[in-house]
Amino acid sequence: MSGKLIGNKYIILTGVNSLLEANEHDVAFVCHYKYIADAVKSKAGVILVSTNIDCEKLINKNIIKVKRADYAYNIILNLISKHMLSENIGVDKYAHIAPNVKIGHNVYIGKNVVIENKTVIGNNVKIFPNVYIGYDVKIGNNCIIYPNVVIRYSTTIGKRVIIQPGAVIGGDGFGFLRINNKWCKVYHIGKVDIGDDVEIGANTTIDRATVGVTKIGSGTKIDNLVQVAHNVQIGKNCVIVAQVGIAGSTKVGNNVQIGGQSGIIGHIQIGNNVMVASQSGITKNIKDDKQVGGNPMTSINSSLKIKVLMKKLPKIYKDLKTLKKFLKISN
Amino acid sequence: MSGKLIGNKYIILTGVNSLLEANEHDVAFVCHYKYIADAVKSKAGVILVSTNIDCEKLINKNIIKVKRADYAYNIILNLISKHMLSENIGVDKYAHIAPNVKIGHNVYIGKNVVIENKTVIGNNVKIFPNVYIGYDVKIGNNCIIYPNVVIRYSTTIGKRVIIQPGAVIGGDGFGFLRINNKWCKVYHIGKVDIGDDVEIGANTTIDRATVGVTKIGSGTKIDNLVQVAHNVQIGKNCVIVAQVGIAGSTKVGNNVQIGGQSGIIGHIQIGNNVMVASQSGITKNIKDDKQVGGNPMTSINSSLKIKVLMKKLPKIYKDLKTLKKFLKISN
Amino acid sequence: MSGKLIGNKYIILTGVNSLLEANEHDVAFVCHYKYIADAVKSKAGVILVSTNIDCEKLINKNIIKVKRADYAYNIILNLISKHMLSENIGVDKYAHIAPNVKIGHNVYIGKNVVIENKTVIGNNVKIFPNVYIGYDVKIGNNCIIYPNVVIRYSTTIGKRVIIQPGAVIGGDGFGFLRINNKWCKVYHIGKVDIGDDVEIGANTTIDRATVGVTKIGSGTKIDNLVQVAHNVQIGKNCVIVAQVGIAGSTKVGNNVQIGGQSGIIGHIQIGNNVMVASQSGITKNIKDDKQVGGNPMTSINSSLKIKVLMKKLPKIYKDLKTLKKFLKISN
Repeated sequence: MSGKLIGNKYIILTGVNSLLEANEHDVAFVCHYKYIADAVKSKAGVILVSTNIDCEKLINKNIIKVKRADYAYNIILNLISKHMLSENIGVDKYAHIAPNVKIGHNVYIGKNVVIENKTVIGNNVKIFPNVYIGYDVKIGNNCIIYPNVVIRYSTTIGKRVIIQPGAVIGGDGFGFLRINNKWCKVYHIGKVDIGDDVEIGANTTIDRATVGVTKIGSGTKIDNLVQVAHNVQIGKNCVIVAQVGIAGSTKVGNNVQIGGQSGIIGHIQIGNNVMVASQSGITKNIKDDKQVGGNPMTSINSSLKIKVLMKKLPKIYKDLKTLKKFLKISN
Repeated sequence: MSGKLIGNKYIILTGVNSLLEANEHDVAFVCHYKYIADAVKSKAGVILVSTNIDCEKLINKNIIKVKRADYAYNIILNLISKHMLSENIGVDKYAHIAPNVKIGHNVYIGKNVVIENKTVIGNNVKIFPNVYIGYDVKIGNNCIIYPNVVIRYSTTIGKRVIIQPGAVIGGDGFGFLRINNKWCKVYHIGKVDIGDDVEIGANTTIDRATVGVTKIGSGTKIDNLVQVAHNVQIGKNCVIVAQVGIAGSTKVGNNVQIGGQSGIIGHIQIGNNVMVASQSGITKNIKDDKQVGGNPMTSINSSLKIKVLMKKLPKIYKDLKTLKKFLKISN
Repeated sequence: MSGKLIGNKYIILTGVNSLLEANEHDVAFVCHYKYIADAVKSKAGVILVSTNIDCEKLINKNIIKVKRADYAYNIILNLISKHMLSENIGVDKYAHIAPNVKIGHNVYIGKNVVIENKTVIGNNVKIFPNVYIGYDVKIGNNCIIYPNVVIRYSTTIGKRVIIQPGAVIGGDGFGFLRINNKWCKVYHIGKVDIGDDVEIGANTTIDRATVGVTKIGSGTKIDNLVQVAHNVQIGKNCVIVAQVGIAGSTKVGNNVQIGGQSGIIGHIQIGNNVMVASQSGITKNIKDDKQVGGNPMTSINSSLKIKVLMKKLPKIYKDLKTLKKFLKISN
């Protein structure tokens, strides 16, 4: 991505920050007209501005016009971020790697990492301290696995996957048979299969399938403290916000967005491009392209209308009383 | 459990799978008439069929009739599951076990496991890498403790308990005194007592009691990301689904089932055999055998009715307006 | 704090317990009239009683009158609690501390702890086994960090902070740009800044800022399984109960209390002294001193009224039908 500088090209830049917190050595950005007021006040050394925002004279500072300022800014964040990981190289002598493990080149495997037999680790993978990886796991190239993650046996992980600290992949699913008035564990011998470019949040849990596979499609991003139960199948490029729970065997399409703290029951199907508002309770199938919310679930518009009317319930109740009194209907 | 084979007894079987995904070397099962259509299409080498399902001619494949096909299938899953754990034997030389710890026979204690003084580990226990077990903990025979679990001091765990990765048992309860406009920590010196045959999900947290004990009864199964606060007492054979939260000092009876993402406030009593629908908000005592749901909590039937009527609120509001207009009642 | 003993001063006391579970060698306490009935039945060796509770003759046991019995009792709990941590001293030879780390005096650093370069650990800090601390982290005096906690780079932690097991501080925030129909990770290079006297619950997750800082004010107490997203700013002396989620960039004032399982959307402001009922859905700014609840959010009083009326929806619906029939209005 290239850009056009307007202003002084002899500035020392040492960091990035938001418009209002940036100092004269920071880069900031504007990708929407609503941020222009902040840009005018900003002390940033340079402001990246999207080409479609016409504001050079208003801002009257050093600016660089680029196609997408948010994206250009993110490229800088990525450079800094990579620099912060650059110290983590090589296989640490306190990593415990079973003899029968294949490891690609240019990897980092930190202290106290335990990797069991038959596991394959791709190139350029970074595995931070105290991670446990069971046997027969496959981890693709360029993955980053942060500290204290647990990946149990027979899990497959694609390329460029990022797993935040404390996530658990491949724990047993939650299923029991009722036998003689007791719960008998259903043993889970299925797998977890995670595509390319997936991100999994801190302390999120993804259970292995009973048999078959629990699947997270490529490009899907999962936030912290999310529960994905056994045999769930999530499509590509979904966004699942923190503390969502998805019960067993449910199928979620591609490009689905699920707001925080929503719950989805088991054995249903969510279509492609569906958007689920936060704190919803999803109890039945949803067709492609629907936007839903609430508990009970309705279309997002209905759910907003219902919320407005819930607040009017005291008025509704009072009006009804008035009517009954007026018509002399008792009770 | 014995069964009766109908069909070819010379088949090589190498795995298990669901009816539709099984191949000719897999075992599948049918325990309900609704699965017969799938069984007809199935390529499974053998299908286990419950004796009360009369479908031999319909299915027209190799089948084994057994009393409970789901249970028989689960026995096979258990065999495979045990095989997958069979490599994990012995006390690893990189396990850190304090001198004053008693360890039973035939245990597995993995790398980086830390066990503090005065702790007692039973026979046939498996403790996976990176687990921390504090001092004065008792772990009964045949328990499995998966990686990165934390069990703090003075916790008692029964026999055949399974603890999924990342669970935390015995963290401090959440209690504070307000003193001089600040929160002063209430120190928690109580214990956690977990019965026999309990399962605890990944990243679930069970806090220690202030004084006395937080208790999980025998046979109770707890899913992932569940919060059990200090001094909670849960009875026997309960099922608590993912992301449920139970606040301090609440007592839950036996055979209680709590749906996912429900919350239960502190200091109340839930009777025996109670069923709580998912995403409920429980704010008062519940008597034995009740089925409840919703927030506000009502009987499950009422809560379903309320959900239907919430969807009708726009119609209710419109009708009321019509009536007021008709009767010329303003406002 | 001093008190006045009424009764026998030659008693051997070995523990503490609740009134009804205490034996003759236990201390118990009464800080409210409602507990007097239990105190009468109690077998406790000594009962601490707040000076404003006039009940010596009713209880007729060994009692100690103190200004605040709950506080006095808690001082005893603290002594016992400290004793339980007293074994944990010194830097363990199996701790992995980078060469360029500064460590205060009188610390405990347990087995398998990993501390990266440029990190500074204050005096009297206790760090339990299997904790990971990234580089450039500052941990103030007298902190306690329990097992399997992860603290990623450039986090600052004040004095007397307690972090329960499995908590993750400084994981990447959850943000993505939509580019060519895919989600492109927004890199997070900001920090987390935690004040003095903060407590953070087991398996709670606090994400680092995109740029700038995610901030937890001094004296704030956070329960288990709470999600605090990137760039959230929480004030002083707040109480945030289990399983709450706070979305990105939201600002929470001082002395705010948030009930369990509530969700707060991003980019809003919650004033000082606000109280949020449990399981609420907060979608807009809240002014100082408000008490709110429900989803949709209203004042706590309205939300309770709405809940009562939701239960009356079947009656409301029926009455409306009756009225329409009475007035011969169809549909």
